[in-house]
Amino acid sequence: MSASTGLARTPEPPYHAVIFTSKRSPVDERTYGVVAQRMVDLGSRYDGFLGIESARGSDGVGITVSYWRDEASILAWKRDTEHEKAQRGGRDAWYDAYEVRVARVERAYGFAREPAT
Amino acid sequence: MSASTGLARTPEPPYHAVIFTSKRSPVDERTYGVVAQRMVDLGSRYDGFLGIESARGSDGVGITVSYWRDEASILAWKRDTEHEKAQRGGRDAWYDAYEVRVARVERAYGFAREPAT
Repeated sequence: MSASTGLARTPEPPYHAVIFTSKRSPVDERTYGVVAQRMVDLGSRYDGFLGIESARGSDGVGITVSYWRDEASILAWKRDTEHEKAQRGGRDAWYDAYEVRVARVERAYGFAREPAT
Repeated sequence: MSASTGLARTPEPPYHAVIFTSKRSPVDERTYGVVAQRMVDLGSRYDGFLGIESARGSDGVGITVSYWRDEASILAWKRDTEHEKAQRGGRDAWYDAYEVRVARVERAYGFAREPAT
């Protein structure tokens, strides 16, 4: 992730994306925050990880998109023991609802403002 | 979009997703809000539109994912005259940076808590 923008620096497509959209429940804010950050740290060390972007608004709706080289990398991370435990925590307490969509990125383009000189 | 969760109700894959990640500039909050909402209203009336999810955090990083039946629907909306004008506004003023990724959703699964009885 670019520290200055919060946008992931991904290679030329094709690559894969996991779009995780969630509605937080109003409980257990502190533990949730610790576990969520731990999952970012742990997942980003997996082979095939390309980047991550995340945003959550004041209405509790959050979107995290992680980018991966291939499906095999995604499946390896999904089956990580600590990640599986966090997934159970998500269903048991932290989310009212979520949706996971696994997609193949086919094209991409962007814009970045030139720094003022 | 489900009013209760903010999550889009999409059909079984395959379908397409446009992942729009942006870093807001600190200017022109009021006009930006009006135009952004107008783009949601306008885009959602396009043929092939399936749903939209959006979140922006206090750091200015936002993610909007719109879902579409096919690539042709995405291109028709991209070329909408009013949308093209808003895209120019984004580059001229509202965003420091953005990235658009067009992807094909291949599988999806979710969770929703049972309402308390």
